[in-house]
Amino acid sequence: MSNNQQNETHAHKWGYKDTHMVLQADRSVKMTGDRYELSGLEMPEFVPFLEEMLEIRIDPADIKVEQAEKPVAEPVVNEAFCRAIQQAFPATQYTLDPQARLIHSHGQATGDEIYRILYTKLERSADLIFYCETEADAIQLINLAKAHNVCLVPYGGGTSVSSALKLPAHEKRMIVSVDMRRMNQIEWIDKENLRACVQAGITGSELEAQLAKVGFVCGHEPDSIELSTLGGWIATNASGMKKNRYGNIEDIVENVTLVTPMGVLEQVEAMPRVAMGMQPQKLLFGNEGNLGLITKAVIRIHPLPAVKQYGSIVFPTFKAGTEFLYELMRAGIAPASVRLVDNFQFRFGSALRPRATFMKAAMNKLQKSYLLHVKQFDPYQLAAATIVMEGAVDEVKYQAQQIYKLAQKYGGIAGGEGHGKRGYMLTYAIAYIRDFLLQYHVIGETFETTVPWSKIQTLCDAVARQVDEQHLAYKLPGKPYISYRITQCYHSGVCIYFTFGFYVKGIEQPDEILRQIEHTLRQVIMDTGGSISHHHGVGKLRKDFMAQTLSPASIDLLKQTKQAIDPQNIFGIRNNIFAEE
Amino acid sequence: MSNNQQNETHAHKWGYKDTHMVLQADRSVKMTGDRYELSGLEMPEFVPFLEEMLEIRIDPADIKVEQAEKPVAEPVVNEAFCRAIQQAFPATQYTLDPQARLIHSHGQATGDEIYRILYTKLERSADLIFYCETEADAIQLINLAKAHNVCLVPYGGGTSVSSALKLPAHEKRMIVSVDMRRMNQIEWIDKENLRACVQAGITGSELEAQLAKVGFVCGHEPDSIELSTLGGWIATNASGMKKNRYGNIEDIVENVTLVTPMGVLEQVEAMPRVAMGMQPQKLLFGNEGNLGLITKAVIRIHPLPAVKQYGSIVFPTFKAGTEFLYELMRAGIAPASVRLVDNFQFRFGSALRPRATFMKAAMNKLQKSYLLHVKQFDPYQLAAATIVMEGAVDEVKYQAQQIYKLAQKYGGIAGGEGHGKRGYMLTYAIAYIRDFLLQYHVIGETFETTVPWSKIQTLCDAVARQVDEQHLAYKLPGKPYISYRITQCYHSGVCIYFTFGFYVKGIEQPDEILRQIEHTLRQVIMDTGGSISHHHGVGKLRKDFMAQTLSPASIDLLKQTKQAIDPQNIFGIRNNIFAEE
Repeated sequence: MSNNQQNETHAHKWGYKDTHMVLQADRSVKMTGDRYELSGLEMPEFVPFLEEMLEIRIDPADIKVEQAEKPVAEPVVNEAFCRAIQQAFPATQYTLDPQARLIHSHGQATGDEIYRILYTKLERSADLIFYCETEADAIQLINLAKAHNVCLVPYGGGTSVSSALKLPAHEKRMIVSVDMRRMNQIEWIDKENLRACVQAGITGSELEAQLAKVGFVCGHEPDSIELSTLGGWIATNASGMKKNRYGNIEDIVENVTLVTPMGVLEQVEAMPRVAMGMQPQKLLFGNEGNLGLITKAVIRIHPLPAVKQYGSIVFPTFKAGTEFLYELMRAGIAPASVRLVDNFQFRFGSALRPRATFMKAAMNKLQKSYLLHVKQFDPYQLAAATIVMEGAVDEVKYQAQQIYKLAQKYGGIAGGEGHGKRGYMLTYAIAYIRDFLLQYHVIGETFETTVPWSKIQTLCDAVARQVDEQHLAYKLPGKPYISYRITQCYHSGVCIYFTFGFYVKGIEQPDEILRQIEHTLRQVIMDTGGSISHHHGVGKLRKDFMAQTLSPASIDLLKQTKQAIDPQNIFGIRNNIFAEE
Repeated sequence: MSNNQQNETHAHKWGYKDTHMVLQADRSVKMTGDRYELSGLEMPEFVPFLEEMLEIRIDPADIKVEQAEKPVAEPVVNEAFCRAIQQAFPATQYTLDPQARLIHSHGQATGDEIYRILYTKLERSADLIFYCETEADAIQLINLAKAHNVCLVPYGGGTSVSSALKLPAHEKRMIVSVDMRRMNQIEWIDKENLRACVQAGITGSELEAQLAKVGFVCGHEPDSIELSTLGGWIATNASGMKKNRYGNIEDIVENVTLVTPMGVLEQVEAMPRVAMGMQPQKLLFGNEGNLGLITKAVIRIHPLPAVKQYGSIVFPTFKAGTEFLYELMRAGIAPASVRLVDNFQFRFGSALRPRATFMKAAMNKLQKSYLLHVKQFDPYQLAAATIVMEGAVDEVKYQAQQIYKLAQKYGGIAGGEGHGKRGYMLTYAIAYIRDFLLQYHVIGETFETTVPWSKIQTLCDAVARQVDEQHLAYKLPGKPYISYRITQCYHSGVCIYFTFGFYVKGIEQPDEILRQIEHTLRQVIMDTGGSISHHHGVGKLRKDFMAQTLSPASIDLLKQTKQAIDPQNIFGIRNNIFAEE
């Protein structure tokens, strides 16, 4: 990310400064800026929908105002280390600026991080920010940190939602946040073998922009693509929306360079597939900052697809949609992306519709009438799939034809390209809603899991039920909101992505309640056959579930691996099994 | 593998006892038994082809007879350990039988192993064979080995060709070969989520037979599928011919259970895809027996495909065929398997044709005439692809149509289903040729590599040139044979599989020469951009190339990983970076 781009983003909240949601006098919501499909549009149905769902009344005048001056403690300063840094690097590469220190002291987890930075106080903040510009910088910095016993924390896009960037409260050493985003160059592109060597601090948007200039695409599209970095994707074991075509991060990356206190971990050559014995780099995915600095990776790239086509399908029920997905995954026609939203999320998406023109309103009504009256879909049961197809002309044509044919078998009705594109693009704009709602006393979070096909409904129902029970137990006002979508399909299961929220007006420490409910929900997820995480990672938020995830010896092995790579615990971010009690 | 099945296999040579090649009085070669497509057939052109290629004359009377009594040293016996074994296990679970000890003391590498066992002497043999029947056995055995300082060596199908089963000459401790093949049960099948939990000692043929009974297939088809085991596939990081549809072993396996001296390494639940932080099991692929005993794995299974269709395409040149493959991989129509043989291997395959009936001979001639005269293909340049398509009716139909359309663009001519099936099936029968030829003084080996698309031809040419040079340097008789095929295609490159051989009549220590040439060729491969191995692994044969494969810190990390898991070096097979100097 260029410095310019960094100046364009909110200091603490999600996304770009030019974009936020505003509640207008007529109770419609407007998205500022011109960055997204929703930008500049007025959405009259959003607030009424929320009020209906949460059984609350949003009062435009009753705003929970964030603190203007965010508290930041005096930095812990290791004088000798600072002198060494001053001697080794120009002043442009480090700063003690309090604002920069605060920005680098959290990710985007709502309870642990965003609520605290806006309304209370972070437990620990970074003491110095170091801007890494080269691999040599990374090596030298680590050597200095070893010599002076300083704690280093890799920092990429800052979009973690697992509290992986939350700094350990009990860390006594100086904490240096190592911002990798100046390492944002594509070092080389091998057009014939379709790979590129890319510096790890590049953001998804920069990567795709640079590749597109020469006719290529990487295709990794996590929801955070605008801000998150290649290094962050590897450290988190990220997944992209188009993984059916382009793969998840572990499929995309052919070689990782991780600079650690024990030296540089990498393969000598990137290779499509090898039997070289154990491959250390396979272990580096999901390291969550515990081992070192990822400086670059060799990734797979693709020629820009000839065709990119959106689509949507409405199903009578979520179950019918799930059965469609199950068969789709075995029919050799999986599109780049296919997602299925439940009824609540479908209605949520509909509520984000802009004020319609007369013609549009008429068309919408017609469509709705067809679904509800002709096809007799229950508006409180139907679910919708959005589809993105990419590839050669014939390939996409064949996919589209087969997909719609299959959808019919499960009662699906094609909903048109417009809805498909809108559904896909909504992902980016939706991310701003959390921060909009927080000021009106609605606190919310998203979380995800992997689950085998056969357990999808049981798990979703159990989570929804538990949300109700928790809401009751904490005596929270109104009703809670919970919805889910299937975002990724695999051979043996899917990724489910939940969105939940509740009204917290008058409630003490809602962040703490959010965290406790989230913890309870994760236990429900694991008890009903779900995984600890599909792509958000473990960080600190989910550390308690590692013993239900890995055998004791596996955990012991990871501890010894850490000991081998970083015996001084220079990379002391303490995520996952290394978290503080 | 049932005991029955084990009694059916050659003690030391490749494959089943009922199958071997016999040189007949009329100089045709006949394959015995009825196991393969070639079985029972006479091949009149094989010996003439070899004689032409190698510029030799094969004398049916001049046979290099293997030693009837294979020397086996007295076992090293750790009395206390043996007493403990006797107390803990029934006598059916272990043996000191010299024949069993010899069988378990080698794999199938020609120079290091087969030549030695047939004609000279293995450096070290196993002292005791233990037949592991349960996971509890594995745990108990390892505990006894730790208590008494005994060396354990996991043994699966015995098909390793990387000298991974070669026992360390300097091992002073008692060596116990742990035969895993009694653990050959499918523990459960989850039909809805398409997975099965399978014991690691099951062979590929047993696995597929059991799955087929209930309508499923795993689809992992390495050349060794009849004999090799699930555990062996994981330990080697194996690849199957149909990986485009079913994946390589690392794609197929969702959970591995590895019993080690430090405990049981596994995930609590198999999962389609997770972000759980670092995943120790990702490191276990390719462990080459250095860490413990793989007892079971959860694997992906698929409903038996509705259609299985073979195909073949003849291209004017290998280059044209390669260009076809390159485009095929990006067109979304990759068939389950596609392989491309070079001209020498095409002619080799043709030489294995059975004596044709009058009609068949006429047809062959007609086809040949069409290719050579009408299409003006150069018979000394053309190359051939064999294809296997599997899937739903529509899927295969679409694939076939698109594939043949694309082939035309590169001058390819469809060669018919018969040739395709024959080419695919030949793989299994061809494996017997090595042992047939060895007795007529022809020594040969296969080896493979991964290479980026752009370097395919350079690498193949460099290897072929070096074979000639080596042949000259060692003053070997006749001419060497070298041919290659592309067996797997990936996004950024392919697997090349070489076959080479030479006549060694009158040459001292031909096994040593073979090994030295192979070593030189591997260096050429690595110098021209190839990998240490695509799927055979490193074992001891390729240990010298690890420093060109992994960074020093990566190697150090693996050493410390071994130290953490197995500090006593109980699993002392010493493969890969743990090999003796």
